[in-house]
Amino acid sequence: MKKEEITVLGAGLIGSLISIFLKKQGLDVHVYDKRPDMRKSQYYEGGRSINMALSHRGWKSLEQVGLIDQVKPLAIPMYGRRIHDEHGGTSFMPYGLEGQAIYSISRGKFNQLLMEEAERLGATIHFEHKCEEVDFRDQSITFSSPEGTTKKIAPVIIGADGAYSSLRMSMQKQVRFNYKQEYISHGYKELTIPATPEGEFAMDPNALHIWPRGKFMLIALPNPDKSFTCTLFLPFEGTKVCFEKINDEDDLETIFQAYFYDAYELMPDLKTEFFKNPTSALINIECYPWVQGHSLLLGDASHAMVPFYGQGMNCGFEDCYILNQLIDKYGHNSWDLVFEKFQKKRKPDTDAICRLAMENFIEMRDSVADPKFVIRKKIESKLHELYPKEWIPLYSMVTFSDMGYAEAYAQGKLQEAIMDQVMADPLITENWDRLDYEDIINKMETSKAV
Amino acid sequence: MKKEEITVLGAGLIGSLISIFLKKQGLDVHVYDKRPDMRKSQYYEGGRSINMALSHRGWKSLEQVGLIDQVKPLAIPMYGRRIHDEHGGTSFMPYGLEGQAIYSISRGKFNQLLMEEAERLGATIHFEHKCEEVDFRDQSITFSSPEGTTKKIAPVIIGADGAYSSLRMSMQKQVRFNYKQEYISHGYKELTIPATPEGEFAMDPNALHIWPRGKFMLIALPNPDKSFTCTLFLPFEGTKVCFEKINDEDDLETIFQAYFYDAYELMPDLKTEFFKNPTSALINIECYPWVQGHSLLLGDASHAMVPFYGQGMNCGFEDCYILNQLIDKYGHNSWDLVFEKFQKKRKPDTDAICRLAMENFIEMRDSVADPKFVIRKKIESKLHELYPKEWIPLYSMVTFSDMGYAEAYAQGKLQEAIMDQVMADPLITENWDRLDYEDIINKMETSKAV
Repeated sequence: MKKEEITVLGAGLIGSLISIFLKKQGLDVHVYDKRPDMRKSQYYEGGRSINMALSHRGWKSLEQVGLIDQVKPLAIPMYGRRIHDEHGGTSFMPYGLEGQAIYSISRGKFNQLLMEEAERLGATIHFEHKCEEVDFRDQSITFSSPEGTTKKIAPVIIGADGAYSSLRMSMQKQVRFNYKQEYISHGYKELTIPATPEGEFAMDPNALHIWPRGKFMLIALPNPDKSFTCTLFLPFEGTKVCFEKINDEDDLETIFQAYFYDAYELMPDLKTEFFKNPTSALINIECYPWVQGHSLLLGDASHAMVPFYGQGMNCGFEDCYILNQLIDKYGHNSWDLVFEKFQKKRKPDTDAICRLAMENFIEMRDSVADPKFVIRKKIESKLHELYPKEWIPLYSMVTFSDMGYAEAYAQGKLQEAIMDQVMADPLITENWDRLDYEDIINKMETSKAV
Repeated sequence: MKKEEITVLGAGLIGSLISIFLKKQGLDVHVYDKRPDMRKSQYYEGGRSINMALSHRGWKSLEQVGLIDQVKPLAIPMYGRRIHDEHGGTSFMPYGLEGQAIYSISRGKFNQLLMEEAERLGATIHFEHKCEEVDFRDQSITFSSPEGTTKKIAPVIIGADGAYSSLRMSMQKQVRFNYKQEYISHGYKELTIPATPEGEFAMDPNALHIWPRGKFMLIALPNPDKSFTCTLFLPFEGTKVCFEKINDEDDLETIFQAYFYDAYELMPDLKTEFFKNPTSALINIECYPWVQGHSLLLGDASHAMVPFYGQGMNCGFEDCYILNQLIDKYGHNSWDLVFEKFQKKRKPDTDAICRLAMENFIEMRDSVADPKFVIRKKIESKLHELYPKEWIPLYSMVTFSDMGYAEAYAQGKLQEAIMDQVMADPLITENWDRLDYEDIINKMETSKAV
């Protein structure tokens, strides 16, 4: 029997990884991307990539295709958050147990590595091919490319073409396609803390740095060249500190000196970068169904999320992992079944992580600066240390396990209610390390049973 | 100063009415519609128009442009709901006070009347012009027509091009456009109860007929030719009675005999119509902003709602009325200001009516068949009779007043809470007409003051 050709739209991180999985399945894979080949051109997608934080679900998927050893050198472990207060003081909050980390990795090189692996396994990547339209009646795709417009019959299509997916645009015109795109009130801008003149990291490289300032924040992630990529999140307009009100170098300086003094000292190119780099918006996308005929949406194309839980890429990689499992189970001739099972299984989980990502923004920019929140985190860490299976902090369930996101969400809400009770004790600031931890665990087991 | 040309997309009910308003403002108006001229062709948009129910907000807008007398002959007053039970028995629930009615009107003739008035006043309607794309950088529109593709600069654009608006599609690609489209689990199909062999109405013509059956329902609205247009609302799939399970004439007969016996007797063409007419889906659309440059979304293009409050057209007409007021106030050279004021003022109201329309589906298909609900309605009618200003039932605020929908919604929720208390009396079925009505009014005044 002739092997059916699989068309993957998008040669980004998710499109490249799914192509690797599909090639390892022995399938015929053609990938189309609207961008030119980043390896051949000077093209670099500046402005749109917050540095990625690779964590368990991502590593698990890379392990499945045997890429751990190749990716490791690109990634820098961050064992916790380093919180910078307004006076330049810092404190450290570990993400999980000793040794648990999330890994800073920059999009460009990582993407290149995945594309090269896909090609090595036999996938063909067609660059500068923009998908203009998918016609589901005959599963045809219209591409525009420098050579003109072409039409291609594609028996199986996987749309890994990101938040602004062309496949999804075509699906949206179909009846009974539910769709929501929502921009948050904040935008972001990328800035840099370069290596020191001595060629060293200017701050602790093994942490994700945060300057939480209530309604806004700055973060910084380390790069292998010993610089940090910083991302400034501000409301677009309408507040005291917002993008709309930073119109010249004086405005900028005033704000950085007032709120980010220690970072400001490390940013010699701030003024140039700020006014040169774009201000980008942050979108959340949810839709359903993800399947139309033999076409499936994957990754950001079906569930773009805001970046505040560091799960966008990891979730997309886990999509690939789960889709691959279903292909293992149902074979290469049951795409209807595979796609249907995939969307049914995966949708509640991606809804949960989209929601968590939205909620975590408040934690990052605001709560982490609150002393009571710090104590709360410490109690939860302690519980996790003492009862590693019974109490797993929500962040750890999401980041260091592969429990379904929806289950993690539900369990997290339960723990939150119990922690609210614990924190209601007016003496908690003094007593937190003398609590009856067993009693807390029992409370949780009881409420679980209900 | 040269008059600026206004481009209206869509020659439907809303596009035609806004063109009339704009012509009366003395503006230069060009209307583009993708469909052929319904007056010249045999074209009729079967299947997609539930008969309209014209009510106060619609009439108010028509009055403003002097069209009451021309529209009246096309409209049949319906003074209440006539509820049909499973045994063929009926009961009548008035919509409001004596003389208050909503008016059944069919889309085709009404649309024609409005188009003719727009043309009479000097608007030019270009048929078979499909808007393919709006480019906001230079306010240009690309149209495709039987003569080919043309591009036109349009300094001011009003998109009254319905739930599947092309203008909105172009806006959706802009950054920071929030958008949601949501299909409900039910679809609908149009059917007919023709006039009797004697040429008379087969049922009471001055009512909206409802066969509420819990998870599904049938409704019927009178036409001037003495037929009724019926609409069957069923879940698409997954329930005992749903479209998916009606596959042949036997299935159809079984269901109609079991649930809609008295209607079935009056529907000689049921079997032919059911399998010939399309099953259509029902969409709710919310988006924001409605303005991009000098382009504005109006009517269904910005807030398509499900049809269960009979407000889709009335709300769109009120959009025109309010936009016209703002043009009166700010003049013809301040489109930025007019459009900005319009969307700010109108968005909370259209959000409220979209929500009410969704909620009213449950009332129509389910609650109206509940004896306690009937008593509740009677108490509310009585309150309204005794205290016409202090207590206006939600339905009346929406249908027979021009109070903002958002205010009506809030006031409605307040009254609902009080009625819940009243209905909690276990003897309410016996006592409902001996209640202390003044006490109820006092309760409401108190909770309002809070």
